[in-house]
Amino acid sequence: MSAENSSTPTSITLPWASDFHCHLRQGAMMETVTPMVEQGGVHTVLAMPNLTPPLTTTQMAVDYGKELQKLAPNVHFILTLYLNPALTPAEIAKAAAAGITAVKVYPSGVTTNSDWGVLDFKIYYPTFQAMQEANMVLCLHGECPSDAAKGICILNAEERFLATLRELHQAFPKLRIVLEHATTQAAVECVKSLGDTVGCTITAHHLFIIIDDWAGHPHHFCKPVAKFPHDRDALREVVKSGHPRFFLGSDSAPHPRSSKQGEKPAAGVFTTPILIPLMATLFDKMECLDKLEGFISTYGRQFYGLPEPIDGTITLVRLPLGVPAAYAISGSASDGETVVPFMASTEIGWSISKAE
Amino acid sequence: MSAENSSTPTSITLPWASDFHCHLRQGAMMETVTPMVEQGGVHTVLAMPNLTPPLTTTQMAVDYGKELQKLAPNVHFILTLYLNPALTPAEIAKAAAAGITAVKVYPSGVTTNSDWGVLDFKIYYPTFQAMQEANMVLCLHGECPSDAAKGICILNAEERFLATLRELHQAFPKLRIVLEHATTQAAVECVKSLGDTVGCTITAHHLFIIIDDWAGHPHHFCKPVAKFPHDRDALREVVKSGHPRFFLGSDSAPHPRSSKQGEKPAAGVFTTPILIPLMATLFDKMECLDKLEGFISTYGRQFYGLPEPIDGTITLVRLPLGVPAAYAISGSASDGETVVPFMASTEIGWSISKAE
Repeated sequence: MSAENSSTPTSITLPWASDFHCHLRQGAMMETVTPMVEQGGVHTVLAMPNLTPPLTTTQMAVDYGKELQKLAPNVHFILTLYLNPALTPAEIAKAAAAGITAVKVYPSGVTTNSDWGVLDFKIYYPTFQAMQEANMVLCLHGECPSDAAKGICILNAEERFLATLRELHQAFPKLRIVLEHATTQAAVECVKSLGDTVGCTITAHHLFIIIDDWAGHPHHFCKPVAKFPHDRDALREVVKSGHPRFFLGSDSAPHPRSSKQGEKPAAGVFTTPILIPLMATLFDKMECLDKLEGFISTYGRQFYGLPEPIDGTITLVRLPLGVPAAYAISGSASDGETVVPFMASTEIGWSISKAE
Repeated sequence: MSAENSSTPTSITLPWASDFHCHLRQGAMMETVTPMVEQGGVHTVLAMPNLTPPLTTTQMAVDYGKELQKLAPNVHFILTLYLNPALTPAEIAKAAAAGITAVKVYPSGVTTNSDWGVLDFKIYYPTFQAMQEANMVLCLHGECPSDAAKGICILNAEERFLATLRELHQAFPKLRIVLEHATTQAAVECVKSLGDTVGCTITAHHLFIIIDDWAGHPHHFCKPVAKFPHDRDALREVVKSGHPRFFLGSDSAPHPRSSKQGEKPAAGVFTTPILIPLMATLFDKMECLDKLEGFISTYGRQFYGLPEPIDGTITLVRLPLGVPAAYAISGSASDGETVVPFMASTEIGWSISKAE
């Protein structure tokens, strides 16, 4: 135990963690990153449906789940569908029966019809009603599309979306809704003010970075973009407070290095292989390691209605973990590309010493 | 004359323009971009002193001016010094006598000493006093250094600097001060509220882009970063109003393509070769071509105390100008690199048809 941190432990044993927002991709990238879920300390992961083509039917999601399961037999995959007009109440019932947990909404899939850019979800109300009845979860990418004429840009797109979140919650108070990857003080305050059926995921990287960190640094560029220092402070504070409706959703989003370093870098930060060591490092720095288990496991599982984990534990230790400069994309269709993780070529303060 | 623009001209003849903030670099890049000043419609250009090493003495600035003059014999170069402790009142007098016009301040060269990040310029007050007496101009990069603990990031660094601008103006009311490359509504309002000795440059690119345009687009990334739609609106409005203390300073800042596309893209947008056609295109779109000459020539020359231009004219026409994908860096030390201009691979609406 180091002298300067004598009141905090140097090792913690916890259940395997849960990541309620993760991009596991397809093809070689999927084959590369899916096994890294476990390496990062996670045994339950919600897999995003924005593939090519998007997962729009029950069968597609079920098939994708089978592919993932082969690559990581110990991991429990939470499957999702991409909101689209074919998700009729009948298809929702079918999806729920097949074990699909959630439906993901991207703003590009909806229309705007007000001067304030509030999104019109009404055409999907029958779908949401069916989801509420089937006890499914609605996952929201909570940003209005940018529209300079309406004053909407990537800095206020999340805040502008909050009216829509409130409206949806009011219309479907029993429907569990997750505002994903919150990045602003406004979003934190809004979620806190709503009822118990509204949860909120926070990524690892948004707890670390602000706008200065991604300006001129494409590997830190993601959507929603990291914002002001006071926004990061608000994310850290709500996590530190142990609020049970705020939990980990990494939004880990790997891209080949060539897509991140070029004329138009793709949005996304890749944290999967270091996720829980990264969280331990931050919670240690924030002096709230006692809140770690809630954020990376308990709160999200309770919100999603998952049983208590019974599949073993991981032991985190305060020993430096060297993060590689990049990982080879080594799947069956590899083309020599690499994927650069968050914190590449640095050391973070905690590692996983034992997993069983 | 096109039908949809019957009230505006399809050609305008104006004096050669003036650019009161430009990076002309050194070596091969200097040899490449300096001749492009004239191509862009400019015959008077203020050359920035942030070279390697910075131009810290009169002799260095004079020598640099000679290099530039050889590369563009028709262009009038306004020379500047980089603020540093060696700029004693005696050196200022020497610089003024040698025809050096301005001193440039970068925030990295000063210290912060307040909770609000206000910069402490007091150690330079004797220098500023000497500049006021010698009728030199103080050019400010008006941003506080980022400091997350004080809530300062690249989004509010300019606004936080305005208290320092006010303070300097109050301490030296007769010293001409230019707040360079304003990017915010707050900066515009502040400069408008100050006296006639405070001017403000605006770049071409900040009149076009907002944060969405540089997020994920390194060739649009510059410092200060482009901000909210309402900030761009404020820049456009003050230009459109013909306010005589707001004038063109392009902050054109070429970097080799390899420095813009990589792990850490350099900050800077390169507009020199298309500068005045770009401005004509924008002023036409804003329906204020009658204000173009003031912004690109008259106001800045009046502020800097330059004579009316007598070296001929340029004729701008409403005919598309194809902007290349990149320019070869073709100077004596060329290494096959290129430099990518703003609006690369697009067409802008106006061109220069005749220069004499």
